[in-house]
Amino acid sequence: MNARVLPSRPYNFSAGPATIPAEVLSQAAAEMLDWKGSGMSVMEMSHRGKEFDSIHNQALADLRELLAIPSNFRILFMQGGGLAENAIVPLNLSARKPDQVMDYVLTGSWSQKSAKEARRYGEARIAASGEADGFTRIPDPASWQLSQNASYVHLCSNETIHGVECHQLPDLKALGSDAPLVIDFSSHAASRPVDWSRVGLAYGGAQKNLGLAGLTLVVVREDLLGRALPVCPSAFNYQTVAENNSMFNTPPTYAIYIAGLVFQWLKKQGGIETIEARNIAKAQLLYDFIDGSQLYLNKVAKGNRSRMNVPFFLRDEARNAAFLEGAKAAGLLQLKGHKSVGGMRASIYNAMPLAGVQALVDYMRDFEKTQA
Amino acid sequence: MNARVLPSRPYNFSAGPATIPAEVLSQAAAEMLDWKGSGMSVMEMSHRGKEFDSIHNQALADLRELLAIPSNFRILFMQGGGLAENAIVPLNLSARKPDQVMDYVLTGSWSQKSAKEARRYGEARIAASGEADGFTRIPDPASWQLSQNASYVHLCSNETIHGVECHQLPDLKALGSDAPLVIDFSSHAASRPVDWSRVGLAYGGAQKNLGLAGLTLVVVREDLLGRALPVCPSAFNYQTVAENNSMFNTPPTYAIYIAGLVFQWLKKQGGIETIEARNIAKAQLLYDFIDGSQLYLNKVAKGNRSRMNVPFFLRDEARNAAFLEGAKAAGLLQLKGHKSVGGMRASIYNAMPLAGVQALVDYMRDFEKTQA
Repeated sequence: MNARVLPSRPYNFSAGPATIPAEVLSQAAAEMLDWKGSGMSVMEMSHRGKEFDSIHNQALADLRELLAIPSNFRILFMQGGGLAENAIVPLNLSARKPDQVMDYVLTGSWSQKSAKEARRYGEARIAASGEADGFTRIPDPASWQLSQNASYVHLCSNETIHGVECHQLPDLKALGSDAPLVIDFSSHAASRPVDWSRVGLAYGGAQKNLGLAGLTLVVVREDLLGRALPVCPSAFNYQTVAENNSMFNTPPTYAIYIAGLVFQWLKKQGGIETIEARNIAKAQLLYDFIDGSQLYLNKVAKGNRSRMNVPFFLRDEARNAAFLEGAKAAGLLQLKGHKSVGGMRASIYNAMPLAGVQALVDYMRDFEKTQA
Repeated sequence: MNARVLPSRPYNFSAGPATIPAEVLSQAAAEMLDWKGSGMSVMEMSHRGKEFDSIHNQALADLRELLAIPSNFRILFMQGGGLAENAIVPLNLSARKPDQVMDYVLTGSWSQKSAKEARRYGEARIAASGEADGFTRIPDPASWQLSQNASYVHLCSNETIHGVECHQLPDLKALGSDAPLVIDFSSHAASRPVDWSRVGLAYGGAQKNLGLAGLTLVVVREDLLGRALPVCPSAFNYQTVAENNSMFNTPPTYAIYIAGLVFQWLKKQGGIETIEARNIAKAQLLYDFIDGSQLYLNKVAKGNRSRMNVPFFLRDEARNAAFLEGAKAAGLLQLKGHKSVGGMRASIYNAMPLAGVQALVDYMRDFEKTQA
């Protein structure tokens, strides 16, 4: 990537589709009409040609390196996002055991949706739920009621709406289950390392940390392939997708290209450990300010607070509109909270720099003072 | 769109992902870091925000106008392309009649795949097949063996690989069937008007005439909604998608934006009738040249030749490599035929100008002379 003078841009706190590094956008713009002398935009390339092949293979290699994905896991680029995966996961895995029991841990809105959709394909049991606590904490794994014969255990490891994050993946074996752990890591993928020894399958929509809406990342352990129900569409059968290297149907080629640019950007930043350290610092700056303020409030248990999605409330909700209006004027965009929770939400994904969080904190401090 | 000096580009005959108007690519590049003063790339916008809302609504309105889609049809933006729709169509429509019979007309490779996938969900009967003719002609509708109780009749109205196109959609009622006609119009969508009075549902991947791979266009008559099988994933349930205005799951927002730019480009060209006339002229130029040459051969019956995909052979196949090498040097890209058919294929979608087809014909003429 060439050094370029990048235009000054507002800070975009959207929960997804979300902010993308300006370097990535600039490179995409520069290469739009002619990718590396090919005479084609990446949008115009056959997915089976050597140009796209090189883009695809580089993205796979970079992601495997960044996330230290072991060789017995396959990386699949699919479509439909997390909500489609809510069906695609049980379509592929629910028949692993003959009685089709699936264990779901409910950590917020997204895992509730996952469990509901799974019931189309078998018995989805609720192993644990944070609902009684308003999803402000993740139930202690020691309390999970795991089935002896579950096809898999499903956990949304970062809940975008409720702002809770699982900072250590459970060791299901130690909890007495031999089921593979399936994680929906849509909203914190590539923000931190993954302990693959505890994971059977991870999936996520790309529109938070990996680029464009319309691309789904699936990382699946090879022994979980080949177990799909007969009604599973071929295009969503993990084994079929894996055997065809994500080319059974035409993949979302441009989204794979953008994800590849994001992966290169991540490597240039210093890799996942560097990004994780930066994410920790960003989150700490914002949570510390909120906790020390009189006006703002975050309700999530400290040990379960998300580094990616920070929902917060103004104790005086009559000030919400003024807060959002002033934020926009200050170049701080898309801070309105999800309609089901209300209040505010700052999503501070990988592409949000520390300076963006600092600008938000500065604005929040000023707003608190002037409005008091 | 501002008038800009556009760079000279090679002509790209890829079957898909395929060439995109340079004006569209230039506008996308210019707006990449800041869409209309919003401070955001389209890639970074919440799909529920007012900015993307305006992009989405404009695309819907423009497409409805361009294709004269009646008000009792819904336009859905989905994911997975044509191969995913091969399952999604029967998942949504096969239960329309209790015995789940579906009629398939086989016009080439793509409809063969469609029928095979449909068998996951019921009895897919072959109403007619061009296979005995090597898919060089579409069976006369008068000869189709239509079931009395089919949930639908499926027809791929343009076969990208075999280069056959249905130039007049069948009137199923006149043929004694009361089933809705389902067309896969992936590779000629928006290249010509559609007679909606003969269609119940049309679907297509966007990567030929509408922009990016990863977006599926579905146009469905409202009375066909609400009939999905219980195992149909919610994200692929036409009724759910329609009720949520394609926002049940996060849609492929950037692909919708690019499709919208393509729709605006089409309107600027003069609309579908103008584009159709241009497509007829382009196809005629190429077919006339092939028919008049000694070296080149197209095997498709004249009445069924595709205006979009022109497969052709060199009578001396030993010259294939030299033909492709010379073509590339002349700035004529991606002419290699599909591996299942061999030879060459020129895909001349909407975005391919007459000058591109003329350049191809000039090259073919020169190649024939110099190599004779």
